[in-house]
Formats: sequence, C-alpha cells, structure tokens
Amino acid sequence: MKAVGTSESHADAVAICLTQADYKGHLCEGLYQLKTYVDEVEYGGCDKDAVPTILKESPVCAWVDGNNGLGVIVANFSMNLAIQKAKKCGIGWVVAKRSNNYGIAGMYSLKALDAGFLGLSFSNATPLVAPSRALEGALGANPISVAAPATNEDYFLLDMSTATVAHGKVEILGRKKLPVPTEWANPVTGALTPLGGSDPSSNYKGFGLAMFVEILCGILGDSGYGPYVRRYGDVHQAANIGHCFIAVNPNYFAPGFEERLSDLMNYIRNMQPADPERPVIVPGDFERQHMSTVDHQGGICYAKDLVKICQMLADRLNVTHLSPLI
Amino acid sequence: MKAVGTSESHADAVAICLTQADYKGHLCEGLYQLKTYVDEVEYGGCDKDAVPTILKESPVCAWVDGNNGLGVIVANFSMNLAIQKAKKCGIGWVVAKRSNNYGIAGMYSLKALDAGFLGLSFSNATPLVAPSRALEGALGANPISVAAPATNEDYFLLDMSTATVAHGKVEILGRKKLPVPTEWANPVTGALTPLGGSDPSSNYKGFGLAMFVEILCGILGDSGYGPYVRRYGDVHQAANIGHCFIAVNPNYFAPGFEERLSDLMNYIRNMQPADPERPVIVPGDFERQHMSTVDHQGGICYAKDLVKICQMLADRLNVTHLSPLI
Repeated sequence: MKAVGTSESHADAVAICLTQADYKGHLCEGLYQLKTYVDEVEYGGCDKDAVPTILKESPVCAWVDGNNGLGVIVANFSMNLAIQKAKKCGIGWVVAKRSNNYGIAGMYSLKALDAGFLGLSFSNATPLVAPSRALEGALGANPISVAAPATNEDYFLLDMSTATVAHGKVEILGRKKLPVPTEWANPVTGALTPLGGSDPSSNYKGFGLAMFVEILCGILGDSGYGPYVRRYGDVHQAANIGHCFIAVNPNYFAPGFEERLSDLMNYIRNMQPADPERPVIVPGDFERQHMSTVDHQGGICYAKDLVKICQMLADRLNVTHLSPLI
Repeated sequence: MKAVGTSESHADAVAICLTQADYKGHLCEGLYQLKTYVDEVEYGGCDKDAVPTILKESPVCAWVDGNNGLGVIVANFSMNLAIQKAKKCGIGWVVAKRSNNYGIAGMYSLKALDAGFLGLSFSNATPLVAPSRALEGALGANPISVAAPATNEDYFLLDMSTATVAHGKVEILGRKKLPVPTEWANPVTGALTPLGGSDPSSNYKGFGLAMFVEILCGILGDSGYGPYVRRYGDVHQAANIGHCFIAVNPNYFAPGFEERLSDLMNYIRNMQPADPERPVIVPGDFERQHMSTVDHQGGICYAKDLVKICQMLADRLNVTHLSPLI
C-alpha cells in the first residue's frame, strides 16, 4: 500500500484489517483482497489519503462523509465516534457514506466490545445478490456483525453476510471448475442467493435482511445503495459504500448482562450435538478456534496460489516478495 | 378475553393484535392464538390487568418491567416510549422484560412508521429452535421486524422469524399428517431449524441472528432467555418473554431517506423475475396484497377448523358464537 503512496498509518490500518480477517478465518476478506485495495488506490477508485468528516451530529447520532477514503479508516473513525456517544448517552449510532470496502464487519463490532459495549456493524456492498424471485444482483452480500461481552473475557461474535454464502466461496468453486449449488447462486446469471438459499427455505428473509442493512447504510446515509454501489472489480470508480455502526452500553438496561450471556453461551455449547464429532458451538467460537490454530502454527498459513498473486503484485510494485517459511 | 375478566381496553388491544395479524396474512399469530391468550389469563400464566412500569430510564434508553401483562400492552407501551425518545434524541431504545407473546412483530415497527420513523421490533420466544449442530430447541423463533417510510405512503415492512419457517407451518403439516422437510425441523426431536435450513446453506447465520435477537431482548433486559423462556403450551406459568423496540428519526442523518427507499423498492419491483408469473416483490408487498384481498372479500376468511376451535372456546366461556357468513 505504501508503494502506491498510502501513508504509513493508513497502510498499517489496512494491514491490520487484512491480517485480522485471515487470523479469524474469514479468508475472503483477508490478504486475498490486497490486490484490489492496491488497484483501487493506484487506479483512482479510492483516495488513499482521505480522512472522514462529520456532516451532521447530535449527542447520540452522527452522519459521516468518508470522503472516498479507505474503508478501514472511515469505519475506525465512525465506530470510535459511536463508542464515545454510547459512553455519554447509552447509545451511539453513526452512519457513513462515500466509503470503500471495510474488510470484515467484525473488526468494528469488536471495537465496541473492547469498551465493554454491545457493538453492531453493517455495510452495504457491491450488488452481487439477487432479490428473491429476481435473476440479477441488485443488493450486496451486506454483512451484519454483532459483538457482545460475556464474563472471563468470553464474548459473542456474529460476523456474517446476508447471502447464503460469500462470493469468495463461489469464486473458489469456479476456479476449481466445480459446480456451484443452486442454493448458493443462480446457475444462469451467477447472482448470489440471499440467506435461506431456496424459496421453500425462506430466502425472502435473507433478502429482507439485506434490504434492512441497506436501509441502515445507503438509505440512511445517502451513499450508493443497492444497484448503485460500484460493480465488482471496477477499481477506477469510487465505490460509494455506506456503513452503519451502533454501540450500546448495557449498563443503561438490566444489570448482569455479561453473566446472562455467558450462561446462555455455555448452555448451548454443552448441548447434545446431532453428530458427536461436531460439538455445538456459538458465534465467535469458530473464530477463536481458528486464532488458536494460527497461534499454535506460529503464523497464518497462506495458500500457494495466494502467495503467487502477492509475488506478482510485489513484482509490479517493485517491493520485496513475501518469504514463505515452508 | 372479557369473559375471563380482561378489561375492555386490554381486550380491544388483543383483538386488534390478532386481527391485524390475520389481515396482513400472518395467520400463525392471528385468531389462531386466541385460545392460548384466553388460557393464559384463565389459568394464571398472564396477568390480564397488569400495566408496565419503567425500571430505568435515560433520554434515549428505557428498561421496562411488563409485570407479566399481555404482550400487546407491554409492547404498545414500550414502542410508544421509544418513539417519544426518538422525537427528542434521534434514537429511542426500549427493552422490556416479564412480558408475554406480543403477536406479530410488525405491529410495533409500524407504530414507529406512523411517526415517520424507522422502527425495529424484536422478541424472544418459547425455545422451539435448535442451535446449529444441536438436536433440541434452546432458542425461540425470535422475530425481527423492520418498518421504514417511503414516499406516497409506500413503506418497507420486514416481519420475519429467525427460524426457517414458523412453528405454525410445521404444526399444520403435522395435523395434515404430511412429512415435514428436514430443512424446516429436526425429524427426530421436531426442533425447528434456524434460517438457512441446512448446514451448507449456512443455518449458523440464522442461529446467530436468533442469538442476536436474544441478546437484545432477554440478555439486555433480564427476562427469561433461551431455554428459560416458558415452554410451548405451559399456560399455567408466566412466560417471562423479553422484547426490544428501537425507533430512529431519519432526519438525524442524511436528507432524502424516503425518496431513496422508494427508488430502491421500485427498482427491485421492476426487475426481471426468474418466473414471469411470480413478479419480484419487496418486504411489505405480501402483506399489502393480502390486505387488499381481504378488503376485496369484505373480511378475513377463516378456515373451518379454526372457526370450530373458536366455537368450542365460546361454548366453554359461555359467549356468543362467531357467525360464519358462508
């Protein structure tokens, strides 16, 4: 990122964003995205130096202009603002426009968690998902993340897209020339299906949730929305993505939040599994298990084809190659 | 309801709650539920006269004790409070404990809409839904409703459970001795599956959303939560259900909310459908179409077996029978 002129602090923020995604096992938003971030800066889609500004503010709410800056910069700024507001008012609710891809939604809900708060993070995204009954994409895989504190440093972390599966999973099958399940994407147009997959499994709910996220982001914040968010791969244009961040101080409600959440999570973890070899887990356990594996292995293991993409990018930018350990 | 001692105003609120559900086509929460409401009052599960009280309050937030009153009474009170707060602060966020079934979640998000606001309504519920990988139910079908204003009296209305399908749909198949799809419920235990249906179709997301709703309701508000909400049909015990209501004044964010939402909804409605006989609709269109049909027919058409249940209830309570028109 520095090779294309990004400042050290902004490049550091991107590096944390990508490696945190890989560390947590959300590989589609990790190093795999680096080339796109570089391209966006190099080809003018994203303003590498921009810092966000506040357009409208009250003690609880703020509307932020991302000024076409890096998504992680806009999102860090906006969630920090929401947290400050929640400290004083119980709730902080910040909506940002004119941003770019912010990586994993869970990066920002976890920031609220660090302050002892319930954190929510939403973003719209490039229109890859077909509304129920429609053929083509018109909504993003619009992610939802929720983080909530439990006792003994345990926490709940939901970090999901509102599509049945992430676009990256469909892309990987395509690269391997494997068939894509019809519950995941339309076989003709390639548009992703909303969560629910098929009609009898209520994909109108996933569609409704994607629209809910769009209402919180693009509609509330006047960014691009639905089909007007930049198309996938068009790195020369501003993406005009919108985000929404909410921080909630549980102390404004019933005492004992963390104890109840721990109790519920542990109750569920201890339930009898349908398959004895697949114990019941709660949202956040997958990420913790993945982080533990990475720690045990002494680093993130990247696939050879991703390393090759990074080496080609390094050649193009005339920077040092990654040094594979094995 | 009056026959078991409910006051006229409380009974009216229940009547509106049930008929609005039927009017909108959400039959599982309509007149079909009347017997349960009556039983809960008659057998002591619910306090027919109770009115809610505020336990903790700030300009933006409130924590309400439903005092084991009728869900519709607790929910009307709480959403009205959230709307008052949103008028002054941009956001109103109210969590209620010790309540009962509040009917369709959309009843209350629509209240915020009447004030020109974005409205969110959440509730926990009896633990019929199995967490991903688990055999038995430990979470409710925890509904989410989102209502948002568009132009020309158009509006977005999402009113969904976080299970793949409502318990009522599975019950209906059971009564008809028809097989229940494995994507809908566990064939052995009968526990409902979370939205997503099967594992490859990401039912962990529906599970995560059900837990998110539980965090907003039972965990934030100290009602029953997860497995501790009253089991289905146990009308002698207090249900101790929790709700969460959020009202958002769009004027605290970007101007033009209603215009953008109308544009997005109309764009999607005008998309090419996969099946020409099934045009693309947006959340709220199903309900509007159902209401239009009811208006055209001059009233709600109830199934004969539901009328029979109501006649038996009328006999038991010594009140006038329904008078079928056809």
